[in-house]
Amino acid sequence: MQPFELTLTEAAAAIRTKELSPSELTHSVLERITAVDARLGAYVSVVGDAARHAAAQAEREIAAGRHRGPLHGVPFGLKDLIDVAGLPTTASSRVRADHMAEADSTVAARLFEAGAVLVGKTHTHEFAYGLTTPQSRNAWDHGRVAGGSSGGSAVAVAAGAATFALGTDTGGSIRVPAALNGLVGLKPTYGLLPRHGVTPLSWSLDHVGPLTRTVQDAALVLAALTGHDSRDPASLRTGPASDVLPADGGLRGLRVGVPATYYFERVTPEVEAAVRGAIERLRELGAELVEVDIPMARYVLATHWGLMVPEASAYHEWTMRSVPGLYGSDIRVLLEAGELVTAGDYLRAQRARTLMRQEWAQVRERVDVIAAPTVPMTAAMAGQESVEWQDGTVEGVSDAYVRLSAPANITGMPSLTLPVGRDGAGLPIGMQLMGAPLAEATLLRVGQAYEAAYGAPAVPAAVLA
Amino acid sequence: MQPFELTLTEAAAAIRTKELSPSELTHSVLERITAVDARLGAYVSVVGDAARHAAAQAEREIAAGRHRGPLHGVPFGLKDLIDVAGLPTTASSRVRADHMAEADSTVAARLFEAGAVLVGKTHTHEFAYGLTTPQSRNAWDHGRVAGGSSGGSAVAVAAGAATFALGTDTGGSIRVPAALNGLVGLKPTYGLLPRHGVTPLSWSLDHVGPLTRTVQDAALVLAALTGHDSRDPASLRTGPASDVLPADGGLRGLRVGVPATYYFERVTPEVEAAVRGAIERLRELGAELVEVDIPMARYVLATHWGLMVPEASAYHEWTMRSVPGLYGSDIRVLLEAGELVTAGDYLRAQRARTLMRQEWAQVRERVDVIAAPTVPMTAAMAGQESVEWQDGTVEGVSDAYVRLSAPANITGMPSLTLPVGRDGAGLPIGMQLMGAPLAEATLLRVGQAYEAAYGAPAVPAAVLA
Repeated sequence: MQPFELTLTEAAAAIRTKELSPSELTHSVLERITAVDARLGAYVSVVGDAARHAAAQAEREIAAGRHRGPLHGVPFGLKDLIDVAGLPTTASSRVRADHMAEADSTVAARLFEAGAVLVGKTHTHEFAYGLTTPQSRNAWDHGRVAGGSSGGSAVAVAAGAATFALGTDTGGSIRVPAALNGLVGLKPTYGLLPRHGVTPLSWSLDHVGPLTRTVQDAALVLAALTGHDSRDPASLRTGPASDVLPADGGLRGLRVGVPATYYFERVTPEVEAAVRGAIERLRELGAELVEVDIPMARYVLATHWGLMVPEASAYHEWTMRSVPGLYGSDIRVLLEAGELVTAGDYLRAQRARTLMRQEWAQVRERVDVIAAPTVPMTAAMAGQESVEWQDGTVEGVSDAYVRLSAPANITGMPSLTLPVGRDGAGLPIGMQLMGAPLAEATLLRVGQAYEAAYGAPAVPAAVLA
Repeated sequence: MQPFELTLTEAAAAIRTKELSPSELTHSVLERITAVDARLGAYVSVVGDAARHAAAQAEREIAAGRHRGPLHGVPFGLKDLIDVAGLPTTASSRVRADHMAEADSTVAARLFEAGAVLVGKTHTHEFAYGLTTPQSRNAWDHGRVAGGSSGGSAVAVAAGAATFALGTDTGGSIRVPAALNGLVGLKPTYGLLPRHGVTPLSWSLDHVGPLTRTVQDAALVLAALTGHDSRDPASLRTGPASDVLPADGGLRGLRVGVPATYYFERVTPEVEAAVRGAIERLRELGAELVEVDIPMARYVLATHWGLMVPEASAYHEWTMRSVPGLYGSDIRVLLEAGELVTAGDYLRAQRARTLMRQEWAQVRERVDVIAAPTVPMTAAMAGQESVEWQDGTVEGVSDAYVRLSAPANITGMPSLTLPVGRDGAGLPIGMQLMGAPLAEATLLRVGQAYEAAYGAPAVPAAVLA
């Protein structure tokens, strides 16, 4: 096994015990990028010299006995919406051709403080406004979409081209590409991770969070990122709640909500079978299954788009006036549409969100987590525009990918996706665990219990071969 | 002195010591209503029988040794936006002609629980959408406006037709009529008092709070009303912070911010002189004066109207479609205008609010309270539409009355108005004290210190004569 194949947890252990040096690991990851990224298109830019320099410095610090913790000397990628001082934040858009960030975003600063080594900035669907990331290819099948908008981050981690990465999630943009590339992705509670220095898509729905190979890895990254920052007006002053489960590692006493509605509708049979199988495994690990009805399901998409579209247009107002031709046509249409939305429509979506939050809170009173498919289907073919379901309905690929992940954005509750199998074509299937606001510890605990018992290989054989 | 002239604090003491019975006090207030309300127009409806019944019950409880606290047996008025089970909530509008409330609002329920005695529902500017309350007359001069939108509550308390009252405040609707009628009015921190069962005007700016004759009275009512209620999505889980001042009753160590900009611009000379005089008295009581600049002052009105107008139209959407002719023409025009606001305009106001909150928080780091005029002029003549300032600018009366009070609604900070003098026509002048979110105890403490040293007679001689 080469160093780039290690999970973050494995790499951290090897660095701590000095079996592996930060430079060896970083060189291995940089070589891997060179070997695979021309085919994958995960990276906007790679900062090899800076990474080697940072790795060497980490090495000296660790040799001198100043080990900062599990991220020290570990290479990572950052979605190119996230500012790093001295680097452009391109948002994968021509609008940002002359951009240069003057200061680190809060999350980048915290990773640097933890000693992590930036290897490059990863592709996003332009300004995060889409669910496919056309510049990047799925790590398991290059003819298929990476998912989006954090597609570059997902593909990089899945292919061994970063040990972990950060993405952003407005309607599923961490979880969708994580699921489609066989990764773990965490959209934390709204406000838990500060977004200062992160280009917004829709500020009332935007989250930043980790994409990793294992649940344990996600827990390590999350711990480095939490903490209030008054420069994000939504940043919470409270930290995550404690895990509610007993310390024996099992899931006895855990109540897992199984949706009777919405989440298993218009889902491929293979996704449904894999997720129901994983839920059954949670039961075998000691959990109690509780059937739950999903509230206000038919308002999810209208509420999501009703909030996102006008907020996105508000952020892009000035550049849409000055340089509209620099936007890709798909997102320019959305930005133009957003300018026509009335305040009444937006407020209707806001009021629906308020009701949805209250009704989801009632559902969660009966359970500790809710388990459901992350996306209704595995990775679509590149260029595929719609999907036809067994009931005869036809749905746009973006609508399909956002449909099951958006409720966690609308309500602000945390959601963790983890791989739970593959379909007949070998493509990964993801299950998401949703919980109460600030219940990250419980979600991670359940995910780790599943992973310990049934975890799959971390790096895709397809790409490694 | 007759019982209706007593402050809440005086009445509570007399009831506790059994010098005064709840029935005596209630009868006195009901007689006072009969004597003056035909001229004043404070009440939409008076519930004399129910009040006498409640007073008699309070009397029996107190006689049996079950004294509930300072509000027990004390008569009060409720702005007719606030639900009481079994009574209509007319919002002073023909739209609500057939309305009947099925349950008590949270604040009404808490006052009933404290043993207070409802005497009637008071007039509001129709649906709280205005600053004059045309149905009611100023308690000090019947040819002048009561102020609004809680005009009926203010006039009732000022005239001895209620011992205290509740109002609501979206842009100044508690503080403006309190100031114009020589009363104390408290707009608490956004979210401190639950609004469940209170008809909204603009939910992101709406507050409920007390109108009283003294600051001490306001503290007693506030104490009965605080506490989380999940049925108001904005309801805070935290209570007011402790008072920051030493316990000796003086103001040593208190830093009072004195606005160098905005609050003394386009203000009548008599208002400026009275408020500057009151600030000087705070200094004599031990406070240190600190000059502060008011941030983003030129965005106050645009932000306030930009938030309020579309939110109000959203609430009234269905009745504006079904029964538009039942609205008064002044508010129908505003509701129609709100339907045309774009989401972009609304979001621009939301973003301005976010920045304003941050900048006000920075200003407040240097001071404990900010003292300023509540309104730039005393009560306007009924029917007066505009005011011409010394600099030659002409301003609508509503804009003038909302201008100095709106910042506390936009930012959510608490604001307490108290009487600090009268102009040459004998009309009351108000000073507001603004503080950090949840700093109600400090505001009340400062107000009480002022009142103890310089307090004016509580009930207007003009009406009592």
